[in-house]
Amino acid sequence: MGLLESLSGPTDLKALDASELPRLAEEIRDLLVRSVANSKAGGHLGPNLGVVELTIAIHRVFDSPHDRIVWDTGHQSYVHKMLTGRADQFDGLRQEGGLSGYPSQAESPHDIVENSHASTALSWGDGIAKGFRLSGSDRHVVAVIGDGALTGGMAWEALNNIALTKDLPLVIVVNDNGRSYSPTIGGLATHLAKLRVTQSYEQVLEFVKDKFGNVPVLYDTLHGIKKGLKDVLAPQVMFEDLGIKYVGPIDGHDEPAMETALRKAKSYGGPVIVHVVTKKGQGYEPAENHDEDCFHAPQPFDIVTGEERPKQLGWTDVFSEEMVRVGAERPDVVAITAAMLHPTGLADFAALYPDRIFDVGIAEQHALTSAAGLCVGGLKPVVAVYATFLNRAFDQLLMDVALHRLPVTVVLDRAGVTGDDGASHNGMWDLSILQVVPGLQVAVPRDATRLRELLGEALRVTDGPTVVRFPKGALVKEVEAIGEIGSMELLREGEGEPDVLIVAVGPMAEVSLDAAGLLAAQGISVTVVDPRWVKPLDESLTLLAAAHKLVAVVEDNGRVGAVGDAVSRLLRDHDIDVPVRNFGLAQEFLDHAKRPKILADAGLTAIDLAGELADTLRRRAAVEF
Amino acid sequence: MGLLESLSGPTDLKALDASELPRLAEEIRDLLVRSVANSKAGGHLGPNLGVVELTIAIHRVFDSPHDRIVWDTGHQSYVHKMLTGRADQFDGLRQEGGLSGYPSQAESPHDIVENSHASTALSWGDGIAKGFRLSGSDRHVVAVIGDGALTGGMAWEALNNIALTKDLPLVIVVNDNGRSYSPTIGGLATHLAKLRVTQSYEQVLEFVKDKFGNVPVLYDTLHGIKKGLKDVLAPQVMFEDLGIKYVGPIDGHDEPAMETALRKAKSYGGPVIVHVVTKKGQGYEPAENHDEDCFHAPQPFDIVTGEERPKQLGWTDVFSEEMVRVGAERPDVVAITAAMLHPTGLADFAALYPDRIFDVGIAEQHALTSAAGLCVGGLKPVVAVYATFLNRAFDQLLMDVALHRLPVTVVLDRAGVTGDDGASHNGMWDLSILQVVPGLQVAVPRDATRLRELLGEALRVTDGPTVVRFPKGALVKEVEAIGEIGSMELLREGEGEPDVLIVAVGPMAEVSLDAAGLLAAQGISVTVVDPRWVKPLDESLTLLAAAHKLVAVVEDNGRVGAVGDAVSRLLRDHDIDVPVRNFGLAQEFLDHAKRPKILADAGLTAIDLAGELADTLRRRAAVEF
Repeated sequence: MGLLESLSGPTDLKALDASELPRLAEEIRDLLVRSVANSKAGGHLGPNLGVVELTIAIHRVFDSPHDRIVWDTGHQSYVHKMLTGRADQFDGLRQEGGLSGYPSQAESPHDIVENSHASTALSWGDGIAKGFRLSGSDRHVVAVIGDGALTGGMAWEALNNIALTKDLPLVIVVNDNGRSYSPTIGGLATHLAKLRVTQSYEQVLEFVKDKFGNVPVLYDTLHGIKKGLKDVLAPQVMFEDLGIKYVGPIDGHDEPAMETALRKAKSYGGPVIVHVVTKKGQGYEPAENHDEDCFHAPQPFDIVTGEERPKQLGWTDVFSEEMVRVGAERPDVVAITAAMLHPTGLADFAALYPDRIFDVGIAEQHALTSAAGLCVGGLKPVVAVYATFLNRAFDQLLMDVALHRLPVTVVLDRAGVTGDDGASHNGMWDLSILQVVPGLQVAVPRDATRLRELLGEALRVTDGPTVVRFPKGALVKEVEAIGEIGSMELLREGEGEPDVLIVAVGPMAEVSLDAAGLLAAQGISVTVVDPRWVKPLDESLTLLAAAHKLVAVVEDNGRVGAVGDAVSRLLRDHDIDVPVRNFGLAQEFLDHAKRPKILADAGLTAIDLAGELADTLRRRAAVEF
Repeated sequence: MGLLESLSGPTDLKALDASELPRLAEEIRDLLVRSVANSKAGGHLGPNLGVVELTIAIHRVFDSPHDRIVWDTGHQSYVHKMLTGRADQFDGLRQEGGLSGYPSQAESPHDIVENSHASTALSWGDGIAKGFRLSGSDRHVVAVIGDGALTGGMAWEALNNIALTKDLPLVIVVNDNGRSYSPTIGGLATHLAKLRVTQSYEQVLEFVKDKFGNVPVLYDTLHGIKKGLKDVLAPQVMFEDLGIKYVGPIDGHDEPAMETALRKAKSYGGPVIVHVVTKKGQGYEPAENHDEDCFHAPQPFDIVTGEERPKQLGWTDVFSEEMVRVGAERPDVVAITAAMLHPTGLADFAALYPDRIFDVGIAEQHALTSAAGLCVGGLKPVVAVYATFLNRAFDQLLMDVALHRLPVTVVLDRAGVTGDDGASHNGMWDLSILQVVPGLQVAVPRDATRLRELLGEALRVTDGPTVVRFPKGALVKEVEAIGEIGSMELLREGEGEPDVLIVAVGPMAEVSLDAAGLLAAQGISVTVVDPRWVKPLDESLTLLAAAHKLVAVVEDNGRVGAVGDAVSRLLRDHDIDVPVRNFGLAQEFLDHAKRPKILADAGLTAIDLAGELADTLRRRAAVEF
């Protein structure tokens, strides 16, 4: 029986002899690699390989769940899950009914923060620790945050506040895994950065140890080992000045050193930052050597070669190609990403036009307002971001971009149901909150051809902002139009006096057409239209709707406040009271599962749609006659 | 003729002899005090009195609008307006058709950023300067930001990015006016803080001058003159390390010193921070001596005594009283404000329960997530914030609070039309974006009695977040209910077979009842109901609606995605296709004017509502019969 199998929780872990821990770490890494490699849903590998020893140390020093551990951007919680009695559940990782890829209160009392949006852990930690302090309890809070997440504004807001409460029982672990996006500048920084780039990471750590001793050295002696470190270290000056203790940097793969530092931090009696230097992908060669992102979140892969299952051509690839083409045509076009250069498809643009790409860190707020500034400075910015993360910058889109009628184009990838990542990755909010923004125009392409077309149209708008949104993953079947009505495209014409008008939003075209086919077989005549631009809606939709008995809007977004509600309001405002029915996602947080499963559960299949529409017609006929 | 009158713009200002500038400053201050004292709409006084010399210096050194000046939280732009040809328009300040209280592109080519949300100027500056740099122009950008605004996360996001572009033609002026919210800690800081508190500001400046010389000394010699300064100075370490130049601190009322510093900064060829220490309210005794906020934004006042026109009892006062009462009853209740202790009515609570109040700075994101943490830590947090500023924390409300079903209560003051402050202060977004948040409950009290009741109900909810929203200003007439329907209150019962159901949201009760009265006089029977909780809506509304020919929803919010759309969706989901009409604000950015005028323009008067409803009934009758 392996060591990991023998642990039922942190108490067992504490009982292990220190000499057994390297073997435990090895078993954990082995399970991590196997689980992600074989999972049908992939998973986060690199970050978890990096925190094996760190997580062991935390659980040996603190008493979860009496003490509370908060993981920023919860994808680094796999090891934590294994050490809190869930090692045997990793074959169901990220699959429906199986382990979530993030902490989950439903899974374990050791879990707290379930969402995947970055830079929140310090605020959570601040609040929980204040609660403990006010109630006079002896409980501690540990907040683990990556160096990347420290670039997010709310992390800074939290630091500013944590500094004010001298007796806050909060230990901040900065997991500095060296994944930064920009070069290092200045004195010793440059020296160490050179070392870091040209030699192995171990040698850098050796140099650090050699020069300053291992644990803990005061910050200013080691200022700026690289940009990531600089992010970490600059606020530390503030910490020390404000009376927040700092220990570090500590080798994040030296478990005993971390235990020492964490025990010291725990006993301090006030907020402490423990700065840990880890290596993303540590202990699995293909991850360590993976240039792009150290196997951040690979698809299923071959364990020996590290080769990922080949991906199908996706929406992101089409956007990527278009940006390269547009970049060549239009020297005014610049692109912005919030620490997602590769995942948003901007890497090729960046390689070709290095002066015209801005990676701003995990800083969506700055991304949008800086884009407003770029417009004023004479450029045409394209901000590419996951749909769910735009929520971070709603105010900036509204007040900086839209109020000033600036032609920023925001491209939302992973819009609609994303699935495997669970509640906080689904891009099911944008079509609702974007409706609120005056002067904003929103396009939803139904397939690759329309993505190219609508992106082009969006980039030609000069009097206000535009959004183009598309889902995660592989491209869908192309659907050709049979006609145009204003700016809309007709996908199917209802025979005779048509019964139902389906407004099919973007990629819901296919399922809408299938539903129309099923209804036609029952003698119900259906028109299907793709509005293309869902904000503003083309007013000719009103006449089209008035010619039908029932209007159905089908969309891959929460039902509340989205296109269905907009269509209904448009008709009401024109005194057209044709009944409208919304088909979209229930306005709930959705558990992780595959996208088709979630859409099916929401009734967004051809059979369900056709059934529901036929029933509605029958019910109304019964009422009317 | 006065000097100020003789200036038609910055060119004239540059032509003035330095010896004339003190007289100009005096004239400006005189006009500032007179304009705000006599304005029907009040205005921002303290901040503008503080930046007189700073603004003169900026306009003498830079060439606006060739160079671009960005004012963070634009209320500090009055002097800028006077120096760019608008001194003669100050008698119409903040009045309909008159000068905006913020920069306005429609007023002048010297203005850029029109919104009043804080902490954005550095991101704007970053974008504009990048545009200039890429186009090879010689133009400069000046971003003026207060020390308070530096506590906002997006300012930090911007700093992190500005540091990366070594040749960015951006001068950051930190206007440090000493309005900070927390005590200073540590070495020299403590010493200077003591001086600052116990002696006059001039003496502190004297001390600084004496010790370090006037202009410019390097940061670390003057580290932490107070918390505000600490906010400023901590990042400066990062600046210097990253290669961003820093000059300061400079006496912000010494115009020649500032010109020298700004010229140096302009010629540097990369991003520079110029740290200016000003005094809010400078030169007008009642403002200088005003403890609470140095006459930040007074009502009209007596110039000699500084006495403000007495305020009527307002919504905020009622909330304030209730919090004091609740605080005594429930030791678990804690309150959070984002740098708005007095304006949100939490000052009394803070005085009585100093351990249970958290002023987090201009940091709405942190406010919400820290509140989530406080819940986990066993407390019951109330976050009090202006409605428009909640937009900054939408993601945190959704992903940290609601996803975790935590009973945070958010109290939105200044919801609906606020008027004088213009587009970016109106709280016309919350009822829309809040509809999207799963599990959130939203209450809209119609008067003071209902505010007390609904706040009490909200505080007793334990399984998820709640919001209570109310408008700016004086209380409205109390409206008693004549009955209850589920959780709703009936305000008027339609006679016989009723024609119209008006769903009156919160303070729209009175106008709705008046409209009902007018309709009744025409023989149209009207029921008026106050839903009290607008999310979720009471399902008994469906039966009530089904008994009417027309449903009207009246609300003080943008029409898109708000309660009107929610009512319509609820009915459609129940297969009830009674026509619904939304009455609310056009989904546009609204120019500044008085609240009643804006509501009237939106058709939210009894006459307009009655007329529109009667017309709708007639139009529908014509169609049906």
